[in-house]
Amino acid sequence: MVQYTPVRLDTSFAALSDATRRGVLEQLGRSDASITDLAEKFHMTLTGMKKHVGVLERAGLVTTRKIGRVRTCQLGPRRLEDEAGWLEQYRQRWDERFDELEKVVDELTREEKSDERRKRK
Amino acid sequence: MVQYTPVRLDTSFAALSDATRRGVLEQLGRSDASITDLAEKFHMTLTGMKKHVGVLERAGLVTTRKIGRVRTCQLGPRRLEDEAGWLEQYRQRWDERFDELEKVVDELTREEKSDERRKRK
Repeated sequence: MVQYTPVRLDTSFAALSDATRRGVLEQLGRSDASITDLAEKFHMTLTGMKKHVGVLERAGLVTTRKIGRVRTCQLGPRRLEDEAGWLEQYRQRWDERFDELEKVVDELTREEKSDERRKRK
Repeated sequence: MVQYTPVRLDTSFAALSDATRRGVLEQLGRSDASITDLAEKFHMTLTGMKKHVGVLERAGLVTTRKIGRVRTCQLGPRRLEDEAGWLEQYRQRWDERFDELEKVVDELTREEKSDERRKRK
């Protein structure tokens, strides 16, 4: 398999392992939003939302900028290229593996049937 | 965006957020292996490897069966369909969002340039 930077994948998959954080990314895919907006939208305290945004920021999935007293969030620089690549490779492997197993099962079934035929004769 | 089962995605992305666990999946994509084999391969104690396999098993990414005293691991039933789907949608959104931003920047640059031209006249 292609080698990906492990620490990066660790951080981004961990960031994606929470429904609220995935929701925040979906929201920011539609439009930028302040932390206050996000907290309201996801029925969460400001402190809770700040933590989630922090996790996303460290994973490069969100960037924030402070204008006056408002901190606005937008999608970060990472396009999840490596993550999608890893999943794609895994799924190809999975398909190959299950194709192999299917062949083995088919062969066993065929052998069993010809055994039965022999016994009947 | 298409709605995916949140708990499932939480569990699978969390399972993928560890380099050893991703390594185990890559290994099982090549051939089945016992927990002892995996522990050796990843320079880990049996207890440590059992924990990792447990996380993968709960996420449906690995199944294990015990024959005599050996517990053998193989790839589980989940093909990471929803996870790949989520990432794909996100990346499309990301592209659209950055295309939009690029257009805004282009427009601002054009306006700035025509302002400059006006001032020079």
